[in-house]
Formats: sequence, structure tokens, C-alpha cells
Amino acid sequence: MTVLDWIAVDWGTSNQRAWLMAPGGAVIDSRSSDRGMNTLGPEAYESALLDLVGDALPEDRAVPVVICGMAGARQGWREAPYRAVPCAPPGIAEATRVETADPRIDVRILPGIRQDRPADVMRGEETQIAGIFAAHPGFDGTICLPGTHTKWVQVSAGEVVSFRTFITGELFALIEGQSVLRHTLSGGGWDEAAFADAVSEAISHPARTAATLFSLRAEALLHDMPADAARARLSGTLIGLEIGGARPYWLGRPVILAGGGALGAAYAAALGAQGAEVTTLDVRTITLAGLSAARAGMQETGGT
Amino acid sequence: MTVLDWIAVDWGTSNQRAWLMAPGGAVIDSRSSDRGMNTLGPEAYESALLDLVGDALPEDRAVPVVICGMAGARQGWREAPYRAVPCAPPGIAEATRVETADPRIDVRILPGIRQDRPADVMRGEETQIAGIFAAHPGFDGTICLPGTHTKWVQVSAGEVVSFRTFITGELFALIEGQSVLRHTLSGGGWDEAAFADAVSEAISHPARTAATLFSLRAEALLHDMPADAARARLSGTLIGLEIGGARPYWLGRPVILAGGGALGAAYAAALGAQGAEVTTLDVRTITLAGLSAARAGMQETGGT
Repeated sequence: MTVLDWIAVDWGTSNQRAWLMAPGGAVIDSRSSDRGMNTLGPEAYESALLDLVGDALPEDRAVPVVICGMAGARQGWREAPYRAVPCAPPGIAEATRVETADPRIDVRILPGIRQDRPADVMRGEETQIAGIFAAHPGFDGTICLPGTHTKWVQVSAGEVVSFRTFITGELFALIEGQSVLRHTLSGGGWDEAAFADAVSEAISHPARTAATLFSLRAEALLHDMPADAARARLSGTLIGLEIGGARPYWLGRPVILAGGGALGAAYAAALGAQGAEVTTLDVRTITLAGLSAARAGMQETGGT
Repeated sequence: MTVLDWIAVDWGTSNQRAWLMAPGGAVIDSRSSDRGMNTLGPEAYESALLDLVGDALPEDRAVPVVICGMAGARQGWREAPYRAVPCAPPGIAEATRVETADPRIDVRILPGIRQDRPADVMRGEETQIAGIFAAHPGFDGTICLPGTHTKWVQVSAGEVVSFRTFITGELFALIEGQSVLRHTLSGGGWDEAAFADAVSEAISHPARTAATLFSLRAEALLHDMPADAARARLSGTLIGLEIGGARPYWLGRPVILAGGGALGAAYAAALGAQGAEVTTLDVRTITLAGLSAARAGMQETGGT
């Protein structure tokens, strides 16, 4: 049986994901649950972690557990105070160590990054950036991390220089689930041409956004616009608005996109249509690479 | 006791409002309930109307009831098919007559207006426009009707020429009530300077909207931005985005704003700061004036 060396955990707002790691970097197993920060009080984290990985823990030693994400927020398990830009992605030396009742785990939570002006914060994405640096040392350009709160990050010489967060994904979910458009979008799949058209329109006329959104409802009512097209247009309108606003980040600079899934593909298509030079990396791979970089730091400093 | 001549009803998505009218135009009483289209199947409208005004009906004749709004939608009481722009606000000749079980009411529902390109629709606002025409015959310019779905309407020679709907109010409600910003905004009042600043920023940089929204959360987290300022900034960001997009409607044209309440005041402040020439009218007054114009048409055509 493979020896468990350490555990990598990405613990976000709505999910937790753990990788059981063998010495040398092989993944023994990966597991996830929906017990994210939103569902947990501070006292519930240890048992939520043990529910996910407890069966794999040996009895004779403390296994290192390296965590990134919202578990380090003030409302999380234990606050891991932000580092401020410009800075390298925080490593194990900046992690917050959490004492646990169970002696079989040695828990470290990685900090997020803050920016005072314009005010912005990230938690979890800094570890994905560390993972990108591990694969592309010395990358000088822009990193785009799509999600509920998409991050655009300017990096140079191994440091995060500046970043902006766009709540595009959250707006999409609210409008899709609960606005007057919900019936228009219901059951809709995807229409690539409608998406591309909406991106281009939103980049050209960002101020019309709230009118474009209502017109989806009216197009369905008056001209039977199909749900596929309406859904793709909603996505294109919001992503196009964002891409226009993030232009200083991608114009004339190489972009690494943390993709995977439909959302990453949509960003890649929208950026490609604008002539941006985009390299896509798999988001889970870079997350694990970032956590692994922190674990390596632990070994260098003699932590375990 | 004053004789009941007719009943005016504004029946929207979430509310119904009725005015009991005396001959000559005096208001005997006004009443409202939250039994809007959202809560009613087609078969429930008659009893919802009788619950609101039934006690006031005489037994010996059918009282005219003139209705505008979503009661005339396909999912409403009875569909009153849209008129298409360019057109005058529909009058009683275009109304849909509804047969009722109760012989004491003679119900007419006024149609809305549609625009094929860009696709757009209104129901209820066309009657407010008729009310504005009653007070300002021959008005040539722009009408702004703020609400959950704000309408910008170009009118000339007594006709609606074109219009656009912005879902600004609905976005505000979704973000305030259900987004990651909800705690930041909770309990917030108003900060006029923050509102004005956010309007100006959104007009200058519309594409940054989704980033500006997240920065409200980050400002609260990092710099303790008060809820008053955050709430006013959210409103200013969304209204500023809209006012930038509606520029062709208000630039160099007189604007009549259907105001009343905090929302109307916010639009007036934002438009005034841009140098727009704005006249504010009370929205309930113009709604009743529009319904009264339709009732007058009923008398001219010998309806009652």
C-alpha cells in the first residue's frame, strides 16, 4: 500500500477538495464535498476535514495538511492574514498553523493577498498563481482566473503586481436563477455564434448592458429567441463587459488562462476573438501544483 | 354620498392599485394590495378586483373599470395585444374588454407597446406616457420612467417613437439581497456624495462595472467602508451605467422624469449632474391622468 505523505486541500466558499499525496508527488486519491465556508462555523472545520480524509490517516504520526482558500478567511477556520501586493504568492513560511484536537494532522492554512488601492482581495487564487509559477518560472504577463469572482492578475519577476476581481460569474448566476430572464433562459444550452456576437456588442457598447439584458426577454417574447441563444447571449454580454474592462490586463501582454470546463472555454473564445495571446492551463492541476510548492517549502524549512 | 363614476386600476407584476373616481375627476378613495400578476392565475383576477373595490360598487349598473399594466399580459387576466411603435399611447378604442361573472363591473384592459428592433416591450408605462401628454400636450423630447425595469422613451407629436428598457432596478435588488455584497450593504442608508461619485465613475468607465461591485466588498473588508456609502455606491454604479447607455435619449433633449420617492430623486440627481434638462412629475399623478384620458375616450365613444 502507498504511504500517505501529505494532504493538499482547496477549501473554498462552497466546496472542499482534498488530494491524498504520496512521497514524490503522485496522487493516491482525490475527494471533494460541498462543505465549504458557507456551511461551516469555525468549530466545524476539523470534523469536516476528518470526515473527508480521516480514514486515510495513519495512527503513528502527524500528516501535513496544506490548505488554501476561504478556510483562512476571518469567517473561516482560522484567519490567515493577507499579504499585500506587490508580493510573491505566500508560501509555507507565511501560513497559519492550526492546533487540532486530533494528533494525526498538522494543519497549515496559506494566506490570501490584498491590494489597498483599488481595494481588492483574493484567497485561493494566490496558490493557483504559485502553481503557474511552478510550471512557468519567470512568466511576465497576465493571469486570468475565471470563476464566480474572476481575477485578472498582473505578474512580473515571480510577484503579483496588481489585480482586479470582477463578479461576472455571480451576476450570471443571479440573473439566470432569479431575474425576469429566468424563464427565457430555462433549459438553455449553448449557441457559440450568439455568444461571440454578444461579447463583441458588449465590448463596443458596455453602457448598454442593462438594456441588452432586458432585450433577451423581449426577443423571446416577440421573436421566439431560443433559450440556447438567450443563455449564450447573457454569458457573452457579461463576459464581454468584463473583457472590455480588463483590457489593460490583456492588451499586448501574454495571458495564462486557468481554464477547464465550459467557463474556461468561453473566456478563451472571447479573448481569442479580441486577438489576445492566450495559453490555457488546467485549473485543478495548477491548484495542486501551488499547494505542492508550499509543501516543498515545508520540507526545505525542516517542517516535516 | 359621492357617486362612484368609474374605477382606475394600475395592475402590475407585484401590486394592484385602484382609485375610486367621482364624476368630474375627483378621487373618492384609493386602495392597493400586493396581489400582482406574480400571485394570480387568470381565473383569480375578478375576485382579486372585487376584494379590493367590491364594497363600493352599486347594485343597479355596471361601473367602468379601466386597467393598465401586467393584467393585460399573456400570463395576466386577459391578453391585451401590444401596439407597435411608432404609435400614440393606446386608448380605450384599443382596449380589451373582459366579460365578468359579476354584472356590476365593465372591465377594459389597455394594451402595452412593443418595439421590434431592438426588441422591447412595455405594459403600464404607455398609460403613464398618456398621462404626461395630458399635462404637456405636444411635448417633444424624452420621458424617463424609473422602476424595476426603467424605460427611456423618445416621444414626438403625441407618439412614442422608440424606447429602451434597462433592468437596473432588478439588478440592484438581486445584488442587495442575495450577492456576496449583501452583508456589506445590510442596514445601509444613503450617502449622497458617494452616490454622485459612483455615477460619475460608471459613466466614465462603464466596462469596469463588475470590478467596481466587488471593490465595494473589498473596501468594507480592508478599509471599513460604511454600509451607507456602499449602498449609495452600488446604486450610483448601476444608475450611472444606465445613464451612460441612455445618453442618446437625454443629451440635448428635454427630459420628463416620472419621479416620486427615493428612486426618482436619485435619477434626478444623476441626470442633473450630467447637465440634463429635467422636469420631474409625480408618477402616481401621471398614471391616474393616463387612465383618466382613457376613461374620457370611453365617454366620447359613447361607451358609458
